[in-house]
Amino acid sequence: MSVYPIILAQTNFTHRDNLKYPYEERGLQFGDGVYEVIRIYNGSYYLLQEHVDRFFRSAEAVKINLLFTKEELRNLLDELLKRNDMKEDGKVYLQATRGSAPRDHVFPINVSANIYAYVQDFPRGIENLENGISAITHPDIRWENCYIKSLNLLPNVLAKQEAKEQNCGEAILHKDGFVTECSSSNVYLVKDGKIYTHPVKQNILHGCVRMRIEQFVKDLNIPFIEEGFNVEDIAMADELFLSSSTSEITPIVNVDKNQIGTGTPGKITRMLQQAYEKDANIKASEKISS
Amino acid sequence: MSVYPIILAQTNFTHRDNLKYPYEERGLQFGDGVYEVIRIYNGSYYLLQEHVDRFFRSAEAVKINLLFTKEELRNLLDELLKRNDMKEDGKVYLQATRGSAPRDHVFPINVSANIYAYVQDFPRGIENLENGISAITHPDIRWENCYIKSLNLLPNVLAKQEAKEQNCGEAILHKDGFVTECSSSNVYLVKDGKIYTHPVKQNILHGCVRMRIEQFVKDLNIPFIEEGFNVEDIAMADELFLSSSTSEITPIVNVDKNQIGTGTPGKITRMLQQAYEKDANIKASEKISS
Repeated sequence: MSVYPIILAQTNFTHRDNLKYPYEERGLQFGDGVYEVIRIYNGSYYLLQEHVDRFFRSAEAVKINLLFTKEELRNLLDELLKRNDMKEDGKVYLQATRGSAPRDHVFPINVSANIYAYVQDFPRGIENLENGISAITHPDIRWENCYIKSLNLLPNVLAKQEAKEQNCGEAILHKDGFVTECSSSNVYLVKDGKIYTHPVKQNILHGCVRMRIEQFVKDLNIPFIEEGFNVEDIAMADELFLSSSTSEITPIVNVDKNQIGTGTPGKITRMLQQAYEKDANIKASEKISS
Repeated sequence: MSVYPIILAQTNFTHRDNLKYPYEERGLQFGDGVYEVIRIYNGSYYLLQEHVDRFFRSAEAVKINLLFTKEELRNLLDELLKRNDMKEDGKVYLQATRGSAPRDHVFPINVSANIYAYVQDFPRGIENLENGISAITHPDIRWENCYIKSLNLLPNVLAKQEAKEQNCGEAILHKDGFVTECSSSNVYLVKDGKIYTHPVKQNILHGCVRMRIEQFVKDLNIPFIEEGFNVEDIAMADELFLSSSTSEITPIVNVDKNQIGTGTPGKITRMLQQAYEKDANIKASEKISS
């Protein structure tokens, strides 16, 4: 995974080796910041406005003053791709913290946010998209405001690591048995031709890909029920899938070592993957389009 | 607040200006680390072993491999004070993150923890200790594993800021009305000569000063009831106080604009403050000792 040399730092561009932070930085000491991961296909952003909007919503929720308007940020992010001559599939990581200041819980005064964004190559995970992944279930022990895309990701890190150690690609989180989302994606259950997923509330992130899925299901006339489901419902599911900017729409074919449905990606998941490829204007994968 | 020039970085010492972090650091991007704040009186640590023990417990809980044994860390922390010729009242901030690595939720392989510690002047907050502070109550929306002293402190930051904006010094957190702890301290209620506080469980930090208070109350024959209390109980309290390494034992004399007891520090709070001064071997404050 190559990192391109020029990164956005505050409202300027610099070589990535020049961007260093002191040890008294509020991201580093408090996780006091917010972020986005934005997908790039063939050198162009996908769902850029949705990510920019959410970045501003997150920053506002934690009272971090950004240094630019949405339009200025869009221009800076476009410029970032140009300066790196980015023409492949990739992603941009964008972050804002409350800045560098002597450590104190209360907000520092007259301190600017530290903002940066950088580009990376990121090829599509074709194998996972075509064949699906395995997942574990895991208690959701995170804070109550997961609608904010914050840097407080330690429980997500620990859940994802637990999944990896069980040879799985994702952890499906549940609060008292009620499935919320995954460690870094939204999750959906298909039963009798209907899609079930957790309602958009304070305790889950409203994914940008989910926002598109909400449109796809309308176009495809698939009932989309924001009621959520329990861990026990998973065993009876016809299909299960997740969505995120880096994973797109990925089938989940096995949970806690139990096969989901036929153990292969289901029909509705495939329809949504096709809608995604069309929406993102990317070349269709063979298995997905067949 | 002066920062001393020499800081501990990994297992070596360097000038503070030399310690910089890249933007792909797991503390900075995930809050993926743990920390301690250790009190210094007259150039000597107070409760050092307790802090070192907890630092290792926190690191183990999140599976961060530290670079030294407890004894080696103690020696490094002692050396840190010597190299800075630290002879005043102060504090040391000590932190370990999972290290610098390309961003990915799962643990990086063959990457060392980033560890640092630095000293600061920190005079005793005599005015607060003598006269007490005001506090607000605030919902506890944090994650479930607050027994780990982690860098995921955004909810604590937001609660403390809310307190400050209401001209208060601390936020008393409650889960469904049940008081857990404060944004950066433990909290205790006194009623009819008995002390009530939240039991040591997964969802609160076992404070090092609290550990000493648990001993003080035995010596002073004060009933110490680990049952916790509700927000509504606060109005009927005779006394209320908090404890932390930087705040010592601080009376809370006003909560949500309502006076606690007589509106002045209570008798049991004063007894514990005196026990603290004796235990820490520090010169007694006039009002506290009178």
